[in-house]
Order: sequence, then C-alpha cells, then structure tokens
Amino acid sequence: MRIEPRSICIKEVGPRDGLQNESVFVDTQDKIAWINQLSHSGLSYIEITSFVHPKWIPALADAAEVAQGIERVPGVTYAALVPNARGLERALAANIDEVSIFLSASEGHNQSNINKSIQETLPILGETAREALAAGKSVRGYVSTVFGCPFEGAVPVENVIRVTEALFEMGVREVSLGDTIGVANPRQVHDVLEVLLKHFDAGQLAMHFHDTRGMAVANVLTSIEMGMSIFDSSVGGLGGCPYAPGASGNLATDDLLYMLDGMGMKTGVDAEKLKAAALFIQPKMGRSLPSHSMQACQTEV
Amino acid sequence: MRIEPRSICIKEVGPRDGLQNESVFVDTQDKIAWINQLSHSGLSYIEITSFVHPKWIPALADAAEVAQGIERVPGVTYAALVPNARGLERALAANIDEVSIFLSASEGHNQSNINKSIQETLPILGETAREALAAGKSVRGYVSTVFGCPFEGAVPVENVIRVTEALFEMGVREVSLGDTIGVANPRQVHDVLEVLLKHFDAGQLAMHFHDTRGMAVANVLTSIEMGMSIFDSSVGGLGGCPYAPGASGNLATDDLLYMLDGMGMKTGVDAEKLKAAALFIQPKMGRSLPSHSMQACQTEV
Repeated sequence: MRIEPRSICIKEVGPRDGLQNESVFVDTQDKIAWINQLSHSGLSYIEITSFVHPKWIPALADAAEVAQGIERVPGVTYAALVPNARGLERALAANIDEVSIFLSASEGHNQSNINKSIQETLPILGETAREALAAGKSVRGYVSTVFGCPFEGAVPVENVIRVTEALFEMGVREVSLGDTIGVANPRQVHDVLEVLLKHFDAGQLAMHFHDTRGMAVANVLTSIEMGMSIFDSSVGGLGGCPYAPGASGNLATDDLLYMLDGMGMKTGVDAEKLKAAALFIQPKMGRSLPSHSMQACQTEV
Repeated sequence: MRIEPRSICIKEVGPRDGLQNESVFVDTQDKIAWINQLSHSGLSYIEITSFVHPKWIPALADAAEVAQGIERVPGVTYAALVPNARGLERALAANIDEVSIFLSASEGHNQSNINKSIQETLPILGETAREALAAGKSVRGYVSTVFGCPFEGAVPVENVIRVTEALFEMGVREVSLGDTIGVANPRQVHDVLEVLLKHFDAGQLAMHFHDTRGMAVANVLTSIEMGMSIFDSSVGGLGGCPYAPGASGNLATDDLLYMLDGMGMKTGVDAEKLKAAALFIQPKMGRSLPSHSMQACQTEV
C-alpha cells in the first residue's frame, strides 16, 4: 500500500542494547564522545546505558560516569535501563531523564534473563516505576519475546497484553515491544498488532526489532502500515544476539533511516551525522559494523 | 496490510548472478553437485550459468560443462544468461531450457555493462531472442537499473517501460526488473509498480532485488502487496555488488524463504534442503555466506 509521509520517531538504543551484546569494553571517554555525536545527529531519544549490576553487563559498568559525562543536548531524552530500586538510585544520582524497566512476555525468557517468574518481577518493576515517577522521571517499559521465545517458541498474544497492561498500570508512558530473537515476520507483526491495537493506542507502543533473520526492515514497514510511529534501533547494527552468536542484533538505525528517508518520512535525523557516529565507534569495536549502510559505505568515495 | 497466503515463485540465480560477482572460481564438479542439490530443494527455476564470453566472467568459464553435467530434474527450468547469437549457439549446444537476455534501463549502465548504447543493444537481443524461439526455447528478459543507476542516479520509469515493451515485442515471456545496485525503497517500488502495472500484467514481471542497503526483503513485501509473485534470489546471499565491494549482493533465497514461509506463502521450496545447499557451497567460497539465515544458523544446534 502507499504510505503517506509522516513523522517517525527513532529511539537510538545502540549505547545500551548494542554495546551490552558486544564483547568489547569501549573506553568511557569514547562512549561519551560517541553519545555526544549521536546527540547532535538529530535523534530525540538515546538510551545511553544500563544500571543493571555490572556483574551481569560488564560492558556498561561505567553507567554513572557515562551518564554524568555526556553533554545534555536540549530536546534529547537520555534514558537508561534500570532493573530495580537499587539500580534506580544510581540512575537518579546520574540524572537520567527516563527510566526503562523490563520483563518478558514468556516465563522461560523472563526466568533466564531476570532469574524470577513474571509474577515475581512485577512488584519489583512497580516499585521502581513508583519511585522514578516520584522523582519526576518518566518511565518506559520493555516487553521482550513478544514474537517468540528462545525457550518456549510461540508466545500467546494474551501474555503480551497482560504484561503490557501491567506496565501501563504502573504508570509507564510507553511500552516497547521486542522481537528479542528476531523471529517475527511481517504477517505475524500484522496479526499481533491488529490484536494489540484493540487494547492500546499506537502512540503508546514502540516496536523493537532485531534483525537476526533479516526481517527487521520489513517488519518496520508493516508496523508503519499498521499506524506505528516509534522504532528502536542501534546505529551501525551494533550488538548481537545471545541466542545466535555471530548473527545480527538490533535493527540498524542507518538502514532504518535509509528506508524512512527514501519513503519521505520525517525523522529529524541527519544521515551523514549518523554515519559519522557509526564510523567513530566502528574501530573501537574491533570489527566491521554489520549494517548494510556501513558495509556499502566502506568503499564509497 | 494483511496479505492472504498464495503461491510465490522463487527463481534461483545464485549459480549465475551470485557466482559471477564472487572472486573465487568454484570447481566445475562442485558447481554441478551444488546445482543438483538446488534442483532437489523444490525450486522450479534455476539460472545455472552465463554464456557471456569467459573473458568478461571468468568465474563462469565452464558454462557448457556445467549445463551438460547437471542432472535435469523434471519440473525444473534450467536457464542461462546469453548476450548475443554467439553465446546462444553455445547455450543451445548445452541444451539450456530458457535463455535470458539483458539490457539496462539507463544508458550509462548499459554502456558500461554491454559497451553499447541501448539502441545498439536492442537488435542484438532481438536476433538472439528470434533464434532462441526458433530453436524452441523460451526467452526471459532482464532490465537492469530499474530503480537507480550508478552513473546517472534516478531512472525515469518511462525508460523502463520502453525497454520492457521492446523485450516483449521480441517474444520474451517474462521480464525481470532489477534493482541492480540495491537502492530501491518500498515507496519507490510501490510507485514504479503502480505505473508499470498499467502497461504489463503482474504475471509477466519478476522482481530482482539486491540487498545492498538492506531493503530487499521489504521491497519484496511491497511487491507482494502490489500483486507480484515472481522473485529472483541467490542462495545464502551469494554474490556482491561491483559498485560497492564488500556490500551485500542479491537478496538471499533463504532470507526470502524465511519470510514467505512465515507468511504462509506457498513456494514448494524446502528450507532445510536449501540450507544444505548453502552449507555445501559456503566452504568453496572462502568466506561466510552473508544471508541472515546462514549467519544465524552457523551456531544453531
């Protein structure tokens, strides 16, 4: 179908979801310089780090230093992942704008990722959200394994609705629906969204696709057709998939932008500045960044 | 939009378009064994080689031996690229089922690729088609640079219509529309097809996408929405882009199949057998095949 140009919001998650799935520790000053570049690329939202305990995510052990060291560009929201009240304390001390809390739509993944059942996780998230809101911060919710679980396979959409409703009841302003292992196809995205949009407004939901099977851009396209306008992505395709080492991770911001720009969508993001940020971080990663745009640009004059 | 399941025809071009853009020469017996595997994967169409002079495509210098050495599985059409009457002689001697002739929609690319203007190319293709038809063979036409030219940039859709009409007047039964440098986006695909489908039936046209910027799967999705049902692709994403060394080449058959299977489309292709064929050819190429499916499967148990 013909999609008329409209505004699309890109939420950059490379500094968090990208880096946490890379084996390299990027120097704190490099992280700060890189995030500053991203801040000046026209992005309005950057998830800059995670306050999960460094034991679990050593790549982001410098969360506080990064959050305190970066330039705060007006108009840009600086968010961070926060697992619980203790993480929130550190995030608040580092003056994070928005707090992201998370759980899975499937028990198997929630147990593996958080080491608790969904039922045990909810009160922890509720407490975190309550305290964040009390501190004047907005809260975002992530739901993982919306389109499939590495342990359970298919995930009933009813489970997604249940945890999404629980997050909204906690006062989150937006829920990001994650295809954590990158198994979704456009038809499934259509069918799941058709159900979800009977319960939630498109403006309350973001789509968070991983490109494990190369479906991410097509899934975005279908999401846009269904009325969705907020997408998470990672510059250069930074990141990976813990369940398929070597496979692609997050949808690449630059590939997403190539499509959106070509379709006349308004994102406010400057492709050249975004590319400069990707070229800056690439040598720090010790590998070529996997986005198609980066692969195609390596040899361009 | 919701797309109802229907039949989609995948035309495998890896042995021709894939190999011709790889620097490695694959041993003739390996090519034959590999094409035989593809023949038993459920594919109904394989472009097995090219009868362009070996000086131009050394990787396919063994075209005749390959064509004569492979098993001819009933129900599979074995096609080859043929540039002119001399190439046709060799193709006919090797008992090719279908002959593919080619030109570009843009002068710059046609000149670079064929070393002639479009006007000079047409009579050569006409002669080749006439003789192929006289020999009882069917003829397919390729139009390159439909969505953009590496030398001229934008390509007017009128140019595409003109060369496509010229091909049909020569008696070709199908024209494959190539995004040779992988620049198309879904909106452009929509807009170009909207015009072309006023002149041609969807059943007469195939779509041939390259994945240089990661748009190929999304472009297929839009094409399917527009009523298209025939897609060229290359197993494992074999191939590359002469204008962006290191970048992705043809749309990967396995990634395409992942989407089509997930959407309930009927292709007749067995994903496991296709993967086996990709795993067979991979070590001969001296590199990991770039398809997402292959990257994700390397580490799967």
